[in-house]
Amino acid sequence: MNRNKIALLFLGLLLLKSSVFAQIKKDAFAVTDDGYRLWLKYDPIADVGVKKEYQKFTQFIAAPSANPVVKSATDEVQQGLSGLLGKVVPVVLSAKGQSGGIVLTLVTDKSQDFANKEGYSIETVQGNIRVSSESEVGLLYGSFALLRHMQTLQSLSAITLRSSPKVRYRMLNHWDNHDGTIERGYAGSSLWKWYELPERIDPRYRDYARANASLGINGSVLNNVNASARFMSAEYIEKVAAIANVFRPYGIKVYLSVYFAAPKTLGGLGTSDPLNPQVQAWWAAKVKEIYQYIPDFGGFLVKANSEGEPGPQDYGRTHADGANMLAAAFKPYDGVVIWRAFVYKSDPKGDRFKAAYEEFTPLDGQFDEKVIVQVKNGPIDFQPREPFSPLFGNMPKTPLGMEFQLTQEYLGFATHAVYEAPIFKECLDADTYVNGKGSTVARIVDGTLHGYARTAMAGVANTGSVRNWTGHPLAQANWYAFGRLTWDHQLSSEQIAREWVALTLTKDKKANTQIVNMMLHSRDIYVDYNTPLGLSRPWTGVHFAPEPWQNRSSRPDWTAVYYHKADSVGLGFDRTANGSNALAQYRPEVQRQWSNPDSCPLPYLLWFHHVSWDKKLSTGQTLWHEVCSRLYAGADSVLWMQQQWDQVKAHINPETFADVEARLRTQHKEAIWWRNAWVLYLQSFARQPIPPKFKKPEQTLEQVIKSVDVYLLR
Amino acid sequence: MNRNKIALLFLGLLLLKSSVFAQIKKDAFAVTDDGYRLWLKYDPIADVGVKKEYQKFTQFIAAPSANPVVKSATDEVQQGLSGLLGKVVPVVLSAKGQSGGIVLTLVTDKSQDFANKEGYSIETVQGNIRVSSESEVGLLYGSFALLRHMQTLQSLSAITLRSSPKVRYRMLNHWDNHDGTIERGYAGSSLWKWYELPERIDPRYRDYARANASLGINGSVLNNVNASARFMSAEYIEKVAAIANVFRPYGIKVYLSVYFAAPKTLGGLGTSDPLNPQVQAWWAAKVKEIYQYIPDFGGFLVKANSEGEPGPQDYGRTHADGANMLAAAFKPYDGVVIWRAFVYKSDPKGDRFKAAYEEFTPLDGQFDEKVIVQVKNGPIDFQPREPFSPLFGNMPKTPLGMEFQLTQEYLGFATHAVYEAPIFKECLDADTYVNGKGSTVARIVDGTLHGYARTAMAGVANTGSVRNWTGHPLAQANWYAFGRLTWDHQLSSEQIAREWVALTLTKDKKANTQIVNMMLHSRDIYVDYNTPLGLSRPWTGVHFAPEPWQNRSSRPDWTAVYYHKADSVGLGFDRTANGSNALAQYRPEVQRQWSNPDSCPLPYLLWFHHVSWDKKLSTGQTLWHEVCSRLYAGADSVLWMQQQWDQVKAHINPETFADVEARLRTQHKEAIWWRNAWVLYLQSFARQPIPPKFKKPEQTLEQVIKSVDVYLLR
Repeated sequence: MNRNKIALLFLGLLLLKSSVFAQIKKDAFAVTDDGYRLWLKYDPIADVGVKKEYQKFTQFIAAPSANPVVKSATDEVQQGLSGLLGKVVPVVLSAKGQSGGIVLTLVTDKSQDFANKEGYSIETVQGNIRVSSESEVGLLYGSFALLRHMQTLQSLSAITLRSSPKVRYRMLNHWDNHDGTIERGYAGSSLWKWYELPERIDPRYRDYARANASLGINGSVLNNVNASARFMSAEYIEKVAAIANVFRPYGIKVYLSVYFAAPKTLGGLGTSDPLNPQVQAWWAAKVKEIYQYIPDFGGFLVKANSEGEPGPQDYGRTHADGANMLAAAFKPYDGVVIWRAFVYKSDPKGDRFKAAYEEFTPLDGQFDEKVIVQVKNGPIDFQPREPFSPLFGNMPKTPLGMEFQLTQEYLGFATHAVYEAPIFKECLDADTYVNGKGSTVARIVDGTLHGYARTAMAGVANTGSVRNWTGHPLAQANWYAFGRLTWDHQLSSEQIAREWVALTLTKDKKANTQIVNMMLHSRDIYVDYNTPLGLSRPWTGVHFAPEPWQNRSSRPDWTAVYYHKADSVGLGFDRTANGSNALAQYRPEVQRQWSNPDSCPLPYLLWFHHVSWDKKLSTGQTLWHEVCSRLYAGADSVLWMQQQWDQVKAHINPETFADVEARLRTQHKEAIWWRNAWVLYLQSFARQPIPPKFKKPEQTLEQVIKSVDVYLLR
Repeated sequence: MNRNKIALLFLGLLLLKSSVFAQIKKDAFAVTDDGYRLWLKYDPIADVGVKKEYQKFTQFIAAPSANPVVKSATDEVQQGLSGLLGKVVPVVLSAKGQSGGIVLTLVTDKSQDFANKEGYSIETVQGNIRVSSESEVGLLYGSFALLRHMQTLQSLSAITLRSSPKVRYRMLNHWDNHDGTIERGYAGSSLWKWYELPERIDPRYRDYARANASLGINGSVLNNVNASARFMSAEYIEKVAAIANVFRPYGIKVYLSVYFAAPKTLGGLGTSDPLNPQVQAWWAAKVKEIYQYIPDFGGFLVKANSEGEPGPQDYGRTHADGANMLAAAFKPYDGVVIWRAFVYKSDPKGDRFKAAYEEFTPLDGQFDEKVIVQVKNGPIDFQPREPFSPLFGNMPKTPLGMEFQLTQEYLGFATHAVYEAPIFKECLDADTYVNGKGSTVARIVDGTLHGYARTAMAGVANTGSVRNWTGHPLAQANWYAFGRLTWDHQLSSEQIAREWVALTLTKDKKANTQIVNMMLHSRDIYVDYNTPLGLSRPWTGVHFAPEPWQNRSSRPDWTAVYYHKADSVGLGFDRTANGSNALAQYRPEVQRQWSNPDSCPLPYLLWFHHVSWDKKLSTGQTLWHEVCSRLYAGADSVLWMQQQWDQVKAHINPETFADVEARLRTQHKEAIWWRNAWVLYLQSFARQPIPPKFKKPEQTLEQVIKSVDVYLLR
């Protein structure tokens, strides 16, 4: 390269830097990555061999139609190739017998035998890469799969990919409020700018749609389940429609959470009784109105008679009455009603664990075919580790959708690295034994066990307005993993992590392995310092700080002591026949795993047993000693995570590296905080010294309580 | 240029696009600007002649020391020149007799005769551009001034700039809460990530500091005046210190709002009585603790005994007692106590207009020298147009700081374009006549009239986490204008607008003129459709939707009818001697301007008079006709603004253009909404037809009320 050429290149770089890309940067030299691009980075491929092979198949992109969804696919492939290979690849209507291109093909003869219309296949045919599907959206999914394949530098020459989604409704639930706040959101404010809509379309809406479509997510509930009735107003339906218009070319439908009392508060009726004809007519008219604005509206999500929300029980009706009334309004349309099973009564003597099962299983068979009942993975509320909800398997006539939580409400907000795929997988892979061995939760959710017509998986989103979408850079992996599992729940946590790291953080294989290893351990580490051995819910009102001593609330099941039941004898919630007998909600095979405190796996021990402090556990240590061991090991393991991360520094973008590095330091500080809170508090019951090999907390219990109280101040 | 060179350049562009700058873009071609860079864009200079001249003076940057503030200056100049001229200019310690560089010079001999240590001068000396100041921060301000000069393409050869700030404490007040929400914030969530601090330093903190320093702002109150006591905890002081560390090299001090009852709620004392020695000791110890973390801590901002906040009056003490108690704690340090005068009692027969004056003027002379009393520009609360607060001029022994509001609480949130400089100037230029003609509010605030030792100007920030900082792209101008006026209140609204448009939107002179013209009209247009002729406060609880009919609240002065006093006779608040006599709080010369309804300027008419519907105004129209005319003209003028904006399309970055274009459509829709609300509501009192030249609203009053009620729904 001669001097002139270098000068020109340099000039080009500078021109571009200054004018085209809006970034204030400290150092013109530093290569920054603010995380906005997520896993769709399309950075230039450095490997000459790979690049050469890819050139062979990227002479053109042929697409059969100008359908907006197909256009999304070709736009994405074009953008991806422009980044990966540094060239603008033309889009043509037909390959015209030419080879060397990417050809999107709508298959009509069913010869491909896809599991469903959304499936795709990718293979080399006559020198082209052919992406086939029976549907336009299948071509979009196939295009993203092809780009993923190329981003991870796999060979195109003999590519054969074939995949169909296992679940039909694959969706994010946004707990976003009309005022821009997010309930349990730790990544800034809501992505949806309600005051600016419908006129202004934030460019970010489209990038949100791209990210979701790349994973196969096809639905988005835009507003919080603690819903505002204003979303049912004409003003807001128009705003929602504007978002739907952006999502449509990406195969994503919008849904709304509804406030069950809207007929009264918004409609001005005297009642919201689901059996009242006026109420029924109001909802029917409302749904009709929505479809006039949004012809492919997805449906309603409902939190009713739960945590103070209104619902059919306010009028002596059942959940089925309420859900079916709404379903009737959707009869002329494709939309569905998703009814949440997250309910519990305030009963000081009851066991919240059992509430959803008791309230819902008697209704099995009574729900309209348009209704899906959405069940949280565990019986309580997104704890760091829960046994699977006993509802799974016990409503064979009612499609049960899965509700996972991506946002880290009980997982340390945005300052703790917790890779959640193992949480999701633990539940999906759990065997309910309802139809004998192999009756996994996944087979219930994907409909194969009970023949559900409609299958659904929802994730409570962890997205927000911060630049990198999720706050913690590693939390992007949870969005990614959830999306991939909605498509194929048989993927392993490790597979998904490897993929995500390669797409997002580094192409270096050793660094990939090291980061993946850290991610795979992260959940257990968190559980160890936070809720070891099957403890749960030691949090304050903000769900952030440790507060195992918390014993006052407007209801008993909103205290910490309700859950851990620490006393002078021991620790844990007896859910055997001697206690609440929640175990009886499971099949005998499952009960057998957990009912005997001597054989119950330690991660579930205190979920089901009140264990005496001096009981020898399978580890050879007493409960007190084991609790201490876990808490200390958990906090210490964050140091190990720091070491792991520090070692991959050379392979990570500096901005991302520094961000994670700093959060890991916060995590360590807070892990010690939680450890100390537990150890000192439980010691007041166990009345035993902290085992000498562990360094005694520097604070007293009173000091820890005082430090937590800061977070309870106005 | 031969083919190879072009190919190389193209490759360079692509490489850079994909790897260095993280942006998902729809179209690789589109030149996008997301607004993040504010007015510090440093885009390449296209003008060959200007560039050539600039080359002459940009061979090096010489700086006298490695002082962090000086380093900020040289960093900024280097970054600016890299963008403007496309070259990396070396930073050296001394010019060593060479010419052709930019030389930052600390002046110690006072020969330059600056008004104060923060002033700077810029001139050509021996072939160099010399930036001089008596202080490091003055060099920083001078460097930004130089860059502004170059960004606006002015000649360097004969540059002579000399400027010193007229006000000492130039600060933003952030009404940011600990949970990341912002009271009256319309641009996303808080910039401060409290849960991530002190470990993680968001790169944005530094860019915030750069933007402020570029205007001369030197203080930032980080938290809401409705303050949480948690900011006084050790945990949070450490977090605040981490932000202070980022701001320090930019000459910006951090301040905190304090919760007056913190000694009780955080400190565990039995009282927060300012005369209690334990309380005094608690604050003294707290301030000492803060200075251990933040040696240059700015001080406290206090909202006490206002809108339910605790304060000294809870213990029978005065504002002076409370402020002086805190000031005593600051005695060993540089910090100050800024005590807000925004107070009003709930008195159904009283006039809130008079409250602050009545409560504060008797205390003049009683405040410690470390106390500044911060007064809102008007007597009520940041209305679209208010007369100046009668406190100005009436506390000659107490430094009065100005409090402006940048965030558009009563100015249409983020969907209305309102350039606020005319609001600020209207107040600053107002003549109080307290020491005869020419006793402007500005001369009170800058201390020249009463000889205040400490002078202050504060703006309630309009910044948030959205990418472009302020939501509405044009709202960046309000931050800019406020900052420039804190430095020099003699700048005109037009000067500032011209400067901002040139730096931020376009270099095209005709487009600049057109946009500036639109900006200069925008406030009057807003007033016309929102609160014409001196009306105020017709808003709902969210301060967004029109609600002139609102007549129920926990207190009378939180209703709309309290302010406009519409009845069958007429409209407006009689504040003459026949009414509340608030006018008596002003000097006779001022009273004379406003006391006669026949000669009172129309913009203030209904502020001071209850005017009958049929009274002929100076315009020749009756009040009813005039109100209608203004409301219709205001709404129609938004269409004019749309036209103005559409005409400059070719000169504006497409992303910015589309953003403003969409918001102007929202503004027009909402302007009609407000117009209709007022016209229909007032018609029910005036009982007269809408003048025939105006199109009758398509809605009934009931329909408008219903549409507003949507915004009151949970």
